[in-house]
Amino acid sequence: MGLFSKDIQNLNDLFIHQLQDIFYAEKQIVKNLPTMIDKATSPGLKQGLSSHLRETEGHVERLRQVFEMNEAKEKAVDCPAIDGIIEEANDVISEAAGEEVRDAALTAAAQAVEHYEISRYGTLVAWAKMLGRDDCASLLEETLKEEKAADKKLTQLATDQINLRAA
Amino acid sequence: MGLFSKDIQNLNDLFIHQLQDIFYAEKQIVKNLPTMIDKATSPGLKQGLSSHLRETEGHVERLRQVFEMNEAKEKAVDCPAIDGIIEEANDVISEAAGEEVRDAALTAAAQAVEHYEISRYGTLVAWAKMLGRDDCASLLEETLKEEKAADKKLTQLATDQINLRAA
Repeated sequence: MGLFSKDIQNLNDLFIHQLQDIFYAEKQIVKNLPTMIDKATSPGLKQGLSSHLRETEGHVERLRQVFEMNEAKEKAVDCPAIDGIIEEANDVISEAAGEEVRDAALTAAAQAVEHYEISRYGTLVAWAKMLGRDDCASLLEETLKEEKAADKKLTQLATDQINLRAA
Repeated sequence: MGLFSKDIQNLNDLFIHQLQDIFYAEKQIVKNLPTMIDKATSPGLKQGLSSHLRETEGHVERLRQVFEMNEAKEKAVDCPAIDGIIEEANDVISEAAGEEVRDAALTAAAQAVEHYEISRYGTLVAWAKMLGRDDCASLLEETLKEEKAADKKLTQLATDQINLRAA
């Protein structure tokens, strides 16, 4: 957050602030996914998370483009939400006693991350459209679709394999 | 989290742990929604959040039932995710300079809360089914449906009113 209070004067400021928040979040995800991939044992989960890591690097790039399109400084502001979600993921993973149950915990944690992003990108797309920035909305919508697809894949994987092995 | 490490041995332990996490989260939401309702100025948003507060009290009750059905101690464990989401909501709301932009920030914050819950209840329903506890799954699914409906209502409200006023 900024050093001065009340620095969000209008929807455009709010949009930029939310971009900075999700920019931080995406970078934290890029930083933390390798540990999750490392801890996963199911090949499907390892593969799914690895492919999402590459997608996430693309999301960071798209955000850079959106900053540029808005002539806004590329900046990350603290996002206690993603920090909390990641902290909780690390906690539960470290408490899981076996591979199978840890994979189930990891999958759930990854879905909590996806849902945070789905919520934020959904909002960003709506705000970009409202601000008459369909160009930004299109780019952000591509990411939104990938987040939704990643969440769906995780649900499928959990139902077909991970939860069955953990039960 | 527990005092001892590796205390999640199987899917049932993980299910109970996740119940304790969302139990904490729901109680935090009950505690924090009144402030959000107070800060909201759009009558539709005020009303939507108020009606969701009553629903959330019902979600806490349902979780109590699920603990009982599992003969598990009704207990809340720290949930850094919801704490982070709420902290972020308070931050952005306090930085918003006018009523209209604050309402837009509030709506987005409420949707981040909903998405966290949608992710957690989705997982809980899947785990309950896998554990052969369709009775618990049914109860948790009722809450999941209400969370999804609340999110949808917020999207509608944002599109039809809140974002238009803030733009």
